Amino acid sequence: MSGSIPQDLAQYNLKRDELIRADRASRLDHLRASLLPAEQEADQVIRRIRAIEANSIWTADYPSIPHPFPGMEFLTGRTIIVQTKLFNILSKLPKGALLHAHLDGTVNVSVLLELALKHSAIHVCATEPISDKNFTSALPQFKAFAASELSDVGNVVGLTDATYRPSSWIPIQRARELFHADLGGPEGFDRWVTRSLTIDPSEAYGTHNTSTKIWSKFQTTFMVASPLVRYEPILIEYIRQFIVSSIEDGISYVEPRVNFMYKSIISADGQEIPHRQLVVIFDRVVREIKEELKRDGKEGFIGARIIYTTVRFCDNEELEWYLQDCIALKKEFPHLIAGFDLVGHEDVLKPLIYYAETLLRFKQMQKEAGVEIPFIFHAGETLGDGTMADTNLYDAILMGTKRIGHGFSLVKHPKLLEICKERDIAVEVCPISNEILRLTSSMSTHPLPILLNNGIHVALCSDDPSVFGNMGLTFDYFQVLAASELTGLIQLGEMAKDSIKYSTLDAKEKQEALVLWQKQWETFLEYVISTGNEYLASHN
Amino acid sequence: MSGSIPQDLAQYNLKRDELIRADRASRLDHLRASLLPAEQEADQVIRRIRAIEANSIWTADYPSIPHPFPGMEFLTGRTIIVQTKLFNILSKLPKGALLHAHLDGTVNVSVLLELALKHSAIHVCATEPISDKNFTSALPQFKAFAASELSDVGNVVGLTDATYRPSSWIPIQRARELFHADLGGPEGFDRWVTRSLTIDPSEAYGTHNTSTKIWSKFQTTFMVASPLVRYEPILIEYIRQFIVSSIEDGISYVEPRVNFMYKSIISADGQEIPHRQLVVIFDRVVREIKEELKRDGKEGFIGARIIYTTVRFCDNEELEWYLQDCIALKKEFPHLIAGFDLVGHEDVLKPLIYYAETLLRFKQMQKEAGVEIPFIFHAGETLGDGTMADTNLYDAILMGTKRIGHGFSLVKHPKLLEICKERDIAVEVCPISNEILRLTSSMSTHPLPILLNNGIHVALCSDDPSVFGNMGLTFDYFQVLAASELTGLIQLGEMAKDSIKYSTLDAKEKQEALVLWQKQWETFLEYVISTGNEYLASHN
Repeated sequence: MSGSIPQDLAQYNLKRDELIRADRASRLDHLRASLLPAEQEADQVIRRIRAIEANSIWTADYPSIPHPFPGMEFLTGRTIIVQTKLFNILSKLPKGALLHAHLDGTVNVSVLLELALKHSAIHVCATEPISDKNFTSALPQFKAFAASELSDVGNVVGLTDATYRPSSWIPIQRARELFHADLGGPEGFDRWVTRSLTIDPSEAYGTHNTSTKIWSKFQTTFMVASPLVRYEPILIEYIRQFIVSSIEDGISYVEPRVNFMYKSIISADGQEIPHRQLVVIFDRVVREIKEELKRDGKEGFIGARIIYTTVRFCDNEELEWYLQDCIALKKEFPHLIAGFDLVGHEDVLKPLIYYAETLLRFKQMQKEAGVEIPFIFHAGETLGDGTMADTNLYDAILMGTKRIGHGFSLVKHPKLLEICKERDIAVEVCPISNEILRLTSSMSTHPLPILLNNGIHVALCSDDPSVFGNMGLTFDYFQVLAASELTGLIQLGEMAKDSIKYSTLDAKEKQEALVLWQKQWETFLEYVISTGNEYLASHN
Repeated sequence: MSGSIPQDLAQYNLKRDELIRADRASRLDHLRASLLPAEQEADQVIRRIRAIEANSIWTADYPSIPHPFPGMEFLTGRTIIVQTKLFNILSKLPKGALLHAHLDGTVNVSVLLELALKHSAIHVCATEPISDKNFTSALPQFKAFAASELSDVGNVVGLTDATYRPSSWIPIQRARELFHADLGGPEGFDRWVTRSLTIDPSEAYGTHNTSTKIWSKFQTTFMVASPLVRYEPILIEYIRQFIVSSIEDGISYVEPRVNFMYKSIISADGQEIPHRQLVVIFDRVVREIKEELKRDGKEGFIGARIIYTTVRFCDNEELEWYLQDCIALKKEFPHLIAGFDLVGHEDVLKPLIYYAETLLRFKQMQKEAGVEIPFIFHAGETLGDGTMADTNLYDAILMGTKRIGHGFSLVKHPKLLEICKERDIAVEVCPISNEILRLTSSMSTHPLPILLNNGIHVALCSDDPSVFGNMGLTFDYFQVLAASELTGLIQLGEMAKDSIKYSTLDAKEKQEALVLWQKQWETFLEYVISTGNEYLASHN
């Protein structure tokens, strides 16, 4: 495009169209050679519904939501989102793969609590009696007891009793029954536990309204949940729930990150058993679900694999142990171990460069063991510019990461964006997680459009939906669509396809998954057109 | 850089350094062929002070600031900023030119109020009696009366009196005297007026915490201020104050945007006189200041020019009138009219494309008149992605804009970033304005680092310092430095130089200004090193 200014409007408009095309040329939705007629129509329908709802449901008066807008703070706007036609439609979108979710944060907390209440082995304690003073700050601690350790529950004193002895264990059911009526009784107990497993809007947007502060709360949700999730009888149901609810949301493959820092899980009878058993259970649950679906004549689920993770506070010696452990699991379960990652709050924990020597050795270790385990690193989940967390991006890329987890600060790095395109490195973008963890104040300030406009391949992910309340992927797709006029249905479809393309499925599996997705997509387009046009007819 | 992964750590580190260098290669601070020894030392001193203060003054307990951090919300963090050594040092930084500030929003509101109180012609009214109920919402309205219109002030009823007749005019001094003690008496009056001319943290971060809502408040500050600023006796002092306080902050040239939508100003005796008189006054004040400085043997001030602006709600016929008016002023004051711009809230007012035909004609009109007036357009001051406000960037660039005002959404446009580099279009970045007007929640989420890392030329600007409280440019430089580990003193210096290079000064003036700046810079470096090392010695 030359720099001279056109003389007349017709000429100007031609030049303008040319410039806009050039600017958007890298976007995947603009690169599509041709669109199906149904794609064109469905995209238009979605755009019209979005525009109508932006000026109706999003401008209505909500006593508890002082300034609603599309793409607003998720924890506050969620109640509006679920009322929209757009959300309703997107819940049917075939979403491909879920590539970034931490297993311990994937199942609705009320389901987890229900599971916990079924097991008499589960006990609870607190470091002080629970009262209205500490209801929102005191945390429950859970533990599965062996049958031999079970105490006499007859004379037990409740958690809300002033005479409760700090840190004394109570069977969970008894603790619930004894929860004082002033604090809501048994339902109050449920609220107390639920609050400890989730982030409340008053925390994310009030008391903990910085990245550092909200991470301190975020981490405690895992401390509370883990002893429950890592109890074998719950674990089995937990993994099942995660996969089944993902399938219900239109996800056909999951690649959760599983934290192997917990070196054991607790068996039904309260014994410590090696974490290898977690992989065995995962394998069994996946196979069972596949068989059930097959029996019911349902298609739509390809499978699940595990990204082995440990936490960025270990030292190099410990990391070496985890790498060996990961290789051993990969040898035993080659179809299940998808990659290796290091997790935790990048702004405060050790940077990748600290582990460089050990991580570089991993390639050689794999060669010797005859396995291949790609790195799939978290990197750049930060607001920093030139900080350690930000420079993790250099190391992730130099170490050959297959994808980048979050990559929130990637848009600040022109050369790295170039490399991601050259080497076909996709980014796992977790929009709702980023917003709740205060990297962005709303979807309108999220850097995702910069990635998309630069033609970077993106898979939308939920990260820790149990903590954030964004179960499935519908909420994340919704937030993305609500915050950009440029992004429409075609771009969402490209992201769904990319989630399959950039998974660790092998070439043949990917091909099958993409064929399945295309079939689901075409059914979905028909649905959008029919239900959407019905909506539009009644909203004119 | 090839994609293979190095085998050993030494090799890895070499490759890492190479990658980081390549990624930062476009940054202006990295492009500097060589640094003066004093530049190197001063930069290190500044980085060390920043690190110390990040962990001391920014982590202290402030009862009224629940979560302080460097780069935090300006209206809340301001009281901490002014206590820092970093701020103290930056106040001495030679800042080059101020290229983006709206004249009516440049002078401290308490100074404006003081000026108003000196003139018996100035009257005030309100649409209802002022009480504790409407103290923060009811706005004062000002008007300069002709001597012949002056009412008898003896029996006047105060604004806070329940019997006050809505919209009846009261001389400002009387209104102040009569302001009820329950509302603070005369000082209460001052607070009431001041609040109407500024944005309060409770508004930006509470009641008006979206871009749309805060703009509605923002606009009222100008409605209140304009009748005062446009009163000739005040105007003279206002322009003087703006320039003198800018010089005191280390600014050596200003290019304010002046709104000519007000087609007249009010003379000392309350008569309407054409706005041409504003240019005459501007000219006179600038010359007087220059002479005074010369007389005192002070150098450091190059001059001031006006960017002619009108508001994006006019139609094309009206725009045509303004363009003709702008040309007429340029012919009469060729040394004073620097450019043409359209201002106002881009998200809701008319997009540039609406004016395309008229604006394209402007070139021809200039040729016929034998003048040259560059466009210096506001564009992309928005969170939108593909919205009208966002697409203003295409039109600003296609129309040959010399600089881009704000360009907040520019980082979303890969092709436009490329063009800005090719055609040497600089961006006027107003970090504090963007944050208070809710385009970014804090400095850490501002897109400035993306511009800098892409090698875009940036001039830091204050926009409307009287409304935001960021008088001068020290606050804006402070916020930028506080929010990025990558940006140090060298980058700040490059931005200051760029503010001169991308001004509308002619080649010879620029050369003089740059020589002056370099001299100031070297003096400043010595100061940083001496005062900084003193600070560091006492904080070890």
